[in-house]
Amino acid sequence: MSRWEPGARERLNSAALELYATKGFEETTVAEIAQAVGLTERTFFRYFTDKREVLFAGSELLEQHFVEGAAAAPKAATPIGVVTSAVAASADYFPDERRSYSRKRAAVIEANPALMERELRKMSTLAAALAKALRDRGIPEPTATLAAQSGVTVFRVAFAEWIADGSERSMLDIEREMFAELGALTALTR
Amino acid sequence: MSRWEPGARERLNSAALELYATKGFEETTVAEIAQAVGLTERTFFRYFTDKREVLFAGSELLEQHFVEGAAAAPKAATPIGVVTSAVAASADYFPDERRSYSRKRAAVIEANPALMERELRKMSTLAAALAKALRDRGIPEPTATLAAQSGVTVFRVAFAEWIADGSERSMLDIEREMFAELGALTALTR
Repeated sequence: MSRWEPGARERLNSAALELYATKGFEETTVAEIAQAVGLTERTFFRYFTDKREVLFAGSELLEQHFVEGAAAAPKAATPIGVVTSAVAASADYFPDERRSYSRKRAAVIEANPALMERELRKMSTLAAALAKALRDRGIPEPTATLAAQSGVTVFRVAFAEWIADGSERSMLDIEREMFAELGALTALTR
Repeated sequence: MSRWEPGARERLNSAALELYATKGFEETTVAEIAQAVGLTERTFFRYFTDKREVLFAGSELLEQHFVEGAAAAPKAATPIGVVTSAVAASADYFPDERRSYSRKRAAVIEANPALMERELRKMSTLAAALAKALRDRGIPEPTATLAAQSGVTVFRVAFAEWIADGSERSMLDIEREMFAELGALTALTR
């Protein structure tokens, strides 16, 4: 029978990220991650299916924030209003305390093309989930996808600013600025 | 010594796509592709490094169209003006004669998660190249990335419409409509 390890998931997560950042993702073994926090490989696999899942387990939670944020928008909200609500809800997932973890995670992912492809796939899934939430509110295509993709673009650009060296502003603040910037930018097409 | 095979590249490309569409990408071998057009595996490898490259060889050409289109924009063009010029140039790469090939290629890619990840990676590379072209014109970040990503979003949504069943409009027409739609959509944020 396996004993409950308090905080094991978080400890494994931190140790894994530290090893990925210093040794490289490919070079790190599950055994090393477990040893770093005095646990066994078997315990690791109780929390994560593999090394990669340590980095991507949060993606579903992020998607949930987006979809719940879209659902929380007033019934009469415009498509971009719904998207703004969705992206704003995601800011809850990135409090300032998380910034240094997020920064390190991003560096690990950028250093590995396979992880980068997985990350892009997650962003694409996120945009698809948001587009579906918009369609479910009666917003037709291609508006739903254009709006959802724009929301994910704002999210990604804001996230890059949020984790930039020396950045101290909140994710919500940066997201708002990016929506305004996008509005000003694309308005010039008309 | 290897004999020059007139049109070998195109014949291999068509045969490969046909096999990927009917048998599945994973299930198709290079030997089968070559045999389908009466050529040898060795000839295949003179034109493509692997099965995957058949599907992605065009991506660099697409990027080239984008970058040249951006360069062709008037010096005084706004960021979105440069992006519109880049995306419009890509329409040359998708004449109506190409629609049925593009439709089949998209279906093969969508059916295979690994190919889908590669495709997303190519779109990300495209956006990065366009953002660089904007920065080279003196447009600062994050405007450059927001504008470039928006251009790629328009391109992708337009492409999906262009290959939709029964679609007969030109890529350029659809792209123009999508830029207008994006402008109307995001203007509402202000």
